[in-house]
Amino acid sequence: MKIKSALAYSHTLLQSVVQAGDVVVDATVGNGHDTEFLANLVGPSGRVYGFDVQQLAIDNTTARLKNSNLLSRVRLFHQGHEQIEQVLAKDVQIKGAMFNLGYLPGGDHQMITNGATTIKAIKACLTRLTPSGIIGIVLYYGHPGGLTEKNAVMKFANQLPQKQFTVLQYQFINQVNEPPILLAIQKR
Amino acid sequence: MKIKSALAYSHTLLQSVVQAGDVVVDATVGNGHDTEFLANLVGPSGRVYGFDVQQLAIDNTTARLKNSNLLSRVRLFHQGHEQIEQVLAKDVQIKGAMFNLGYLPGGDHQMITNGATTIKAIKACLTRLTPSGIIGIVLYYGHPGGLTEKNAVMKFANQLPQKQFTVLQYQFINQVNEPPILLAIQKR
Repeated sequence: MKIKSALAYSHTLLQSVVQAGDVVVDATVGNGHDTEFLANLVGPSGRVYGFDVQQLAIDNTTARLKNSNLLSRVRLFHQGHEQIEQVLAKDVQIKGAMFNLGYLPGGDHQMITNGATTIKAIKACLTRLTPSGIIGIVLYYGHPGGLTEKNAVMKFANQLPQKQFTVLQYQFINQVNEPPILLAIQKR
Repeated sequence: MKIKSALAYSHTLLQSVVQAGDVVVDATVGNGHDTEFLANLVGPSGRVYGFDVQQLAIDNTTARLKNSNLLSRVRLFHQGHEQIEQVLAKDVQIKGAMFNLGYLPGGDHQMITNGATTIKAIKACLTRLTPSGIIGIVLYYGHPGGLTEKNAVMKFANQLPQKQFTVLQYQFINQVNEPPILLAIQKR
């Protein structure tokens, strides 16, 4: 078996904790791959809250979910993930969240996530995370601006109190094309 | 489920590739925990070659393997792992190897593995590794001299050609007591 990529391992981790009926967040729905993955995990009684600042992402994700008959499990918000704090009530408990940081594949490569809003979104998810819940953050950083975001998010994750959270860093290190880094934050 | 420690995840990776009948190396048998784990993986028709420079480690491991009735699957060498190149014939094909770098728990904390001999041992294992085979290297580096070894091994692993090997780095990053880093090298 091949050692899993950062993205594949983020799925393994989410799958190990998210159960039918759970509530989860897809903070960057993009083309809807993770949204679909999460919708399958939470089952018909669960809920995925999905966010994206780009209309193209919301459209692509809606089409994908309709196609796989999963749209009823998902609520999509055409808003940046920095709005999670406002959109999700304080008492919503989430079992997991996914972040795919960078640009929308097939979209405008100038529109990128950035450190400040990403960290705001992560914080909103952390305060709603149930014990053993996991936030998977897949950091693409080969594009202009990517390194700045990567450094900001890594610094933030590094400083999370270890009594409350376990933070895993998972990455391939001998590759030339900056493969993504996975940060996985688990609430203890 | 809790996110696995570096040591636990090294076992997960080895378990995903090592099958009954395979040949593997335990480059640092220590108190024999990994040796026993590997002996269970390779089964009665497989073979574990175990190395340790300390007599105490060989004695503890022998006792452990006798106790679990696994000694017949293991050949122990009271030699430093830099001798792997001499001890194992060139045509021995291995499916995996484990390195636990640092000092022997319960032994003399002054006796530590070091970068130059460790890298020599890793090279000997790499040349004998079969496709999809994995070398798991658990790097403890909180002790005096540990950081120097860590940096040397990381630098070596970083430069392995990506067409031949995939190198994964896996570690908890928000903990104060320098938890070990896992490097896993898979032959493509």
